[in-house]
Amino acid sequence: MKNILIIGCGLIGSSVLRAVIAKKLSKNIFVYEKSKKNISKIKKINSKIIFLKKLDKRISDIDFVILCTPMSQYENIILYLNKFLKKKSIITDVGSTKQNVLKFKNKKLNKSLDWILSHPISGSEVSGPEFGNKNLFQKKWCIIIKDKNKKKVNKVVKFWKKLGSKIIFMNPSEHDKIFAMTSHLPHLIAYNLIKTAQDFQKKEKKNIIQYSAGGLRDFSRTAASNEVMWRDIFFSNKKNMINTINMFIKNLKIFKKNIDNLEDKKLKKVLINSKKVRKQIIQMKQDIPKPDFGRE
Amino acid sequence: MKNILIIGCGLIGSSVLRAVIAKKLSKNIFVYEKSKKNISKIKKINSKIIFLKKLDKRISDIDFVILCTPMSQYENIILYLNKFLKKKSIITDVGSTKQNVLKFKNKKLNKSLDWILSHPISGSEVSGPEFGNKNLFQKKWCIIIKDKNKKKVNKVVKFWKKLGSKIIFMNPSEHDKIFAMTSHLPHLIAYNLIKTAQDFQKKEKKNIIQYSAGGLRDFSRTAASNEVMWRDIFFSNKKNMINTINMFIKNLKIFKKNIDNLEDKKLKKVLINSKKVRKQIIQMKQDIPKPDFGRE
Repeated sequence: MKNILIIGCGLIGSSVLRAVIAKKLSKNIFVYEKSKKNISKIKKINSKIIFLKKLDKRISDIDFVILCTPMSQYENIILYLNKFLKKKSIITDVGSTKQNVLKFKNKKLNKSLDWILSHPISGSEVSGPEFGNKNLFQKKWCIIIKDKNKKKVNKVVKFWKKLGSKIIFMNPSEHDKIFAMTSHLPHLIAYNLIKTAQDFQKKEKKNIIQYSAGGLRDFSRTAASNEVMWRDIFFSNKKNMINTINMFIKNLKIFKKNIDNLEDKKLKKVLINSKKVRKQIIQMKQDIPKPDFGRE
Repeated sequence: MKNILIIGCGLIGSSVLRAVIAKKLSKNIFVYEKSKKNISKIKKINSKIIFLKKLDKRISDIDFVILCTPMSQYENIILYLNKFLKKKSIITDVGSTKQNVLKFKNKKLNKSLDWILSHPISGSEVSGPEFGNKNLFQKKWCIIIKDKNKKKVNKVVKFWKKLGSKIIFMNPSEHDKIFAMTSHLPHLIAYNLIKTAQDFQKKEKKNIIQYSAGGLRDFSRTAASNEVMWRDIFFSNKKNMINTINMFIKNLKIFKKNIDNLEDKKLKKVLINSKKVRKQIIQMKQDIPKPDFGRE
């Protein structure tokens, strides 16, 4: 393609940027990023990136727009895309929930424009363009939301495939349900554990954080993820979050009861069964089998 | 020392073994291990290890005994130590809870023998002697439970220091409270999350495990830990487990309410505060700052 525009250039945006440069996917690369600090970091990646100070008529020639901002910023951005983008352009995004984005698109996007929703499954607890990685999408799932516009869907599929992604199609409700369980709830639980440890520390007036090796340590990494992004996810996937939290609390109460009553068999069954999931995760190459010791 | 005896030679026992060999801490090294499969693995580490088939009069000359079995096996072992061990010997252990072990020691151990309780903070989701690592204790905390017998305490301190540990003294109730929060609750939460994901998968009749990258993946590692060891820990630290679970549930309900009511400020405060803990953990060298991408 001739002109690509990346809107929002943090961890994910700059990873897309790096991959697009490395694979020479576009003649010109435009970036719209609000943070001056980020812009100076991005300039170091490549000198040919064209920075846009505004989304104005200069974007009329863009072929492919990829939204990499937190989802709460879509509303503001879409006004400019509606105003300046040409008909043939394709919009896609990397948002972690899809029902809300689809609703929003149907309500706010000009009917002449096309937005194919996608969600590359990747990320990290660190944010900012300096942590971007051109291989971030390599061999990772990218979910594409089903859409009648096959031609445009194919273009988005082709784009992610070039970045190394494995493609799978879902409908928005299926997507939001699955990722509530595999990604959003784990993050929420990690945040909640750290909050509980902080409350505990206050109550006991002891520095317990220094003894966090192995247990708390791993949760703290997940709970260091970007707060705006995760606020947006929790709010926009509200119904599924509440359902999965309720399932979690129900199981936790059973766990507590089994400890209180020293229920040997019942407790061990849960502990043994978890290992099966671990095995599957390694078989499906979602993780490596290497043991995690002190991480030095 | 002349004669050391390691009782139970899985991940921790074989790590002690490897370190004792590497640092030449004992002239003779005795191992008592029930699993034949483990014994054949341990034989590969070093040909000079002396394997005991029974704990009998052959242990009368042992200077230093280190218990590395799950805590539920202490009761059986102590009968033999009472019967055959000489007065000058020192016993220590690596158990993850201390109030129960102290009670048990006071009740069951011959008054002529000395047992100084210790707990090296280290471990992994893998078990078995093949995963042992001579550097497992290097720069890691080892908690020693306060004891009036300064001479014997010093010997145990010296032993762990030679293995590279940083020593800290605690009383048993302080120990069990702290590690309920920094280690035992995180493990329980990881087990509970995997259990919830399994329930979800059954209910939705979908293979969700394949999309576990990043979120569920990290919990699955923690939840693959040894089930006998963790059953023992949860049961023996019952009171603290129930307290910390209750704190966790209380916070989780607040979290749910904040999502349900779209409480922007309250939610973001929790998400931002977690980052402080992450910073502290890295500053205290409990983890490395390297971002965790796809682990390839």
